[in-house]
Amino acid sequence: MAAKPILQLALDYVDLAPALAMAQLLHKEVEAIEIGTPLTKAAGMLAVSTVRHLCPDNIILADVKSPDVGGLEAKICFDAGADWMTVLGAAPLDTVRLAFEEAAGRPGKEMFIELTGIRDIMERAKEWRDIGVERMVYHRGWDEGNASRVWGENDLTTIKKLIQMGYKVSVAGGLGLDMVKFFKGVDISVFIIGRAIRGDADPIAAARRFRAEIDAYWA
Amino acid sequence: MAAKPILQLALDYVDLAPALAMAQLLHKEVEAIEIGTPLTKAAGMLAVSTVRHLCPDNIILADVKSPDVGGLEAKICFDAGADWMTVLGAAPLDTVRLAFEEAAGRPGKEMFIELTGIRDIMERAKEWRDIGVERMVYHRGWDEGNASRVWGENDLTTIKKLIQMGYKVSVAGGLGLDMVKFFKGVDISVFIIGRAIRGDADPIAAARRFRAEIDAYWA
Repeated sequence: MAAKPILQLALDYVDLAPALAMAQLLHKEVEAIEIGTPLTKAAGMLAVSTVRHLCPDNIILADVKSPDVGGLEAKICFDAGADWMTVLGAAPLDTVRLAFEEAAGRPGKEMFIELTGIRDIMERAKEWRDIGVERMVYHRGWDEGNASRVWGENDLTTIKKLIQMGYKVSVAGGLGLDMVKFFKGVDISVFIIGRAIRGDADPIAAARRFRAEIDAYWA
Repeated sequence: MAAKPILQLALDYVDLAPALAMAQLLHKEVEAIEIGTPLTKAAGMLAVSTVRHLCPDNIILADVKSPDVGGLEAKICFDAGADWMTVLGAAPLDTVRLAFEEAAGRPGKEMFIELTGIRDIMERAKEWRDIGVERMVYHRGWDEGNASRVWGENDLTTIKKLIQMGYKVSVAGGLGLDMVKFFKGVDISVFIIGRAIRGDADPIAAARRFRAEIDAYWA
């Protein structure tokens, strides 16, 4: 039986100050905190190292979506204090391999494949598993979301296949509270929630509602 | 007749200080300076804004290889002082469109498609042109390069087709001085050179050799 899903807060900001304030407010309500891709570019690894210091007990994911130079990008993320980092699924296989090897050589560090923009998921998923990759962010991207793509049964089917292949799957992208139960019965590894928590008038209460909803469906 | 190719220095560093020193040393020898992808993540937009101040007369490219949230990533690059920014070819079409629109609304700003990792270039190139994209970085990625991929006639053929489609093409990836003439007769828009200049014992002399070589073949 898989573990109960982790709740991960996505810090989707382009300025460091409000991101740090939200991390400070919520870090005791979530297991993991994600430094969103635009924030990794706006503030660089200062965002990772500062959240690391403010939130010493959280898992920290640096969502750099590395497209190339995977070993080096993994190294700068881990050196800055990240536990987890992401490589873009569209990256060359060697990029995936180099980032995976960097993580494998450092206890507690892990790399994730990030699926934004990938059209041939299952074909590539086999290549990544052959390298040894075990973790994946199944992501409905922001811009894809803007084009009104919605979560559907085909997503669930794909996620189940990926789990059968041995992947621990994080889900991300426009997930509101009412979407948690959509994944009921599936061994989701991590729920990544952004706007639905930080955009709430009471983010602490919102995080607790997500926690309760996860607890309700994954006993 | 196309303009003579631009010489662009790639600052491929993960620490800001040596990148700034190299920019200071070479900014009068090149037209354009690129903030490399790992540096955009290590130092964030501080790298872009500092190079902007140190090198007011150069074109500055922020090679963020945006994989999603294209409009916002373009905005933070341009706000930081970049003239050019890149979107990953593997990004969703909406990401490309949003970054393109952000650039189009700001005089002098341009977005480039960056081809690292893309397997179906020509198919996608049509989609990007339909959006209005005119610039492209034809890139042999670092990790692909490590796997000993080399520039070949198939690359030249593809680049010529892309130029015929209306693209201004930058070329990048392991280009040494002896590779400049490989592109003779092709309207290359930008030569992006990293290691072959900054790794030279005399980077100024190396940059001048590239300039002379370009001048020799593009009269």
